[in-house]
Amino acid sequence: MITIAVDAMGGDNAPRPEVEGSVRAAEEYGVRVLLVGQPQVIRGALASFGKPSLPIDIVPATEVITMEDHPAQAFRRKKDSSVHVAARLVKEGKADAMVSAGNTGAVMTTARFILGTLESVDRVALAAPFPNAKGGVSVLLDVGANVDSKPEHLLQFGVMGEIYYRLTFGSRKPRVGLLSVGEEEIKGNELTRAVYDRLKALPVHFVGNVEGGDLFSGKVDVIVCDGFVGNIALKICEGLAMEIIKYLRKTYKSSFASQVGYLFSKGALKGIKQTMDYAEYGGAPLLGVRGVCVIGHGRSNANAVKNAIRVAAGLARARVNEKIEQELSLTHAQV
Amino acid sequence: MITIAVDAMGGDNAPRPEVEGSVRAAEEYGVRVLLVGQPQVIRGALASFGKPSLPIDIVPATEVITMEDHPAQAFRRKKDSSVHVAARLVKEGKADAMVSAGNTGAVMTTARFILGTLESVDRVALAAPFPNAKGGVSVLLDVGANVDSKPEHLLQFGVMGEIYYRLTFGSRKPRVGLLSVGEEEIKGNELTRAVYDRLKALPVHFVGNVEGGDLFSGKVDVIVCDGFVGNIALKICEGLAMEIIKYLRKTYKSSFASQVGYLFSKGALKGIKQTMDYAEYGGAPLLGVRGVCVIGHGRSNANAVKNAIRVAAGLARARVNEKIEQELSLTHAQV
Repeated sequence: MITIAVDAMGGDNAPRPEVEGSVRAAEEYGVRVLLVGQPQVIRGALASFGKPSLPIDIVPATEVITMEDHPAQAFRRKKDSSVHVAARLVKEGKADAMVSAGNTGAVMTTARFILGTLESVDRVALAAPFPNAKGGVSVLLDVGANVDSKPEHLLQFGVMGEIYYRLTFGSRKPRVGLLSVGEEEIKGNELTRAVYDRLKALPVHFVGNVEGGDLFSGKVDVIVCDGFVGNIALKICEGLAMEIIKYLRKTYKSSFASQVGYLFSKGALKGIKQTMDYAEYGGAPLLGVRGVCVIGHGRSNANAVKNAIRVAAGLARARVNEKIEQELSLTHAQV
Repeated sequence: MITIAVDAMGGDNAPRPEVEGSVRAAEEYGVRVLLVGQPQVIRGALASFGKPSLPIDIVPATEVITMEDHPAQAFRRKKDSSVHVAARLVKEGKADAMVSAGNTGAVMTTARFILGTLESVDRVALAAPFPNAKGGVSVLLDVGANVDSKPEHLLQFGVMGEIYYRLTFGSRKPRVGLLSVGEEEIKGNELTRAVYDRLKALPVHFVGNVEGGDLFSGKVDVIVCDGFVGNIALKICEGLAMEIIKYLRKTYKSSFASQVGYLFSKGALKGIKQTMDYAEYGGAPLLGVRGVCVIGHGRSNANAVKNAIRVAAGLARARVNEKIEQELSLTHAQV
C-alpha cells in the first residue's frame, strides 16, 4: 500500500483541511496516510471524522514552519518541524511521498536538502498546473525552484515535466513548448535560443516556442521556462485573478444589488477562483528530488489536499523517478 | 503648436478609429495632426466628421504594414509604409511625435532605426501602463523591445520609466520597483541582484524588489524588468483576462439567461476589458528613441487613439528626451 506523509501543520487553516483531505484520500484511493505534526491538535481534528479504522497514523513533530518563516532559516533552525519530519519519512523509506500545503520556499528547501537530487538531475523544478481554454490542464515549470537556469536545466525540466504530465493527466504524448517572446525559432533570449534545437532533438513532442498567453490557450500541455520567469508568471496569474474578482465583486455590489444578482455573482466568482486555483489540480510537484514531494497552495481546502495526495500517490505508484532517470540518461547520451 | 504624426493605417480597424481619435484630439487638446496613409481612404473617413477647419492634414504613404508582417522585413521592404513615413516626419522635425496602433514589432523596429537612440541610452524600452488595485496606474518596462538586458540597461529603464510616469500620470515622486521573485535584496537572479544596489544609488525613489502580483497591487508606480520577462508578463495578462471574460460569458449564458442578467453581465465584462486594456491609458511609449513614439494596441478604438495622442503630445511638450538625457548623464557620472 502506498504511504503518503502529509504535513498536517502547513496550510493557512491547518490542520483541519489536511486531516479531512487525508481521511477522504484514505477512503477513496486506498492509500495509507501519516499525518505529521502536533499529535494533540491532529488527534482532535481526526476524532471529529469518527473513522478509526482507516489506515491513518500520526507521526509527531514538535515544530511548525509558518508562512512568514524564511525558507533556509526554517530548514536550519526547525529540525523537528512537520515538513522536516515528513521529508525524513520519505528519505527513510517509511513513506513513498510527502504532501505539504505549507510555506512553499521552506518545503522546497527542506525536500531538496533532506531528499537530495536524482543522479541525472542537476536542478529540481516546481511544476504548476493551470486550467486552459480547451478544458484541459497546462503545466508550467520551473515556477520558482531555480533562477539563472542553463540550457541543460531547461532540457531536464522538459523531460521531467513531460513525464509528470503523462503520468498525472493521462495524455500519451504531451505537447511541450518553450516559453518565449515569439513563436519563431529565432525569437527569444540567449537561453531559449540555445535550448531550442536541443529540445527538438529530445524524445519529447516539442512543438516550439509559445508566448505568455499560451499558458491558458491549451496549445501545449507542458511549458518550459527558467524559474525566475515562471515564478513571476505564477504570481501575475494569482494577482490578476484576485484583482478581477475584487473588481467584479465591487461592480456587482454597486450596480446590481438584487438578491438574485448577488447570489448569481457569488457563484461565478467562486467558479473563477476554483478554476484558477492550482491546488484544485493536485498541487505542484517538486520534480527531480529523490522521492515524491507535492506542494499545495497555503489556501488548500480538504479537496485540494485530497487531490494532492492522489497526485503524489499516482507519481509514487508509477515510479516517476525511475522514469526520469531512464529518460534523462538517454538524453545525456544524446545531447 | 505640437504636431503629431498619426499612422492612420495601423490598427485592426484602421483608418476609422485613427481618424476619429485624431479629430477629437485636435478639438480637445489643441494639437495639429498629420494623418499618414492612403489619402483616399483617410479622406473618406475624415469627410464623415465634417470638421474641415481643424488643423488636420493628410500625408500620403502608399504601403501598409499588416499585423502578420515580419517586423524587420516590413521595415526593410515597405519603405513607404505609413509607419515609415510617420517616423520620417518626426526625424525631419515636421512632427513632434508619432502615434501608431499598428504591428508593435514593426513600429518599434522602424522607430528605432529611423529615429535612432538618444545619446545616453544604450537600449530603448517599451513601457506598458496597467490599472492597479489602488485605482491608479502602474507602468511595466521593458515589455519587449529588448532581451538579455545588462544591469546598466535596467538602470536606464528605471530612469526613463520614472520620467515618463512623472510627466504622464502627474506623480511628483513615483515609486520604482524591480521585478523579482521575492522582496528581499538577495532574492532574484544574477541580473536583478547586480542592479539592486545601483538602482538604490540613483536619484529615483527606489522601493526595492516587487513580485509578479505587484503589477496590480498599486504598491509601486514603475516596475523595471528585462524585456523577455516583461513581454511574457504582458502576454500573460492579456491572455488571462481574455480567458476569464470568456469563462464568465459562458457561465452567464448557461446559468442565468434572463434579460437582466445578460445585460448586467455585458456591462461588467466590458468593464474588465476596458480596465485591462492598456490602450485606455494612452498606449505604450517607446522610450529612448530620438523623438516621441507611442504605440497603441491593435484593437485601439477612437478613444484609445485620442488618449495616445494626448500622451504623445504631453511627452513632446514636456521635452521628455531632454529630461532623459539630463538625468542619464547624471546617472552615468554617478554609477
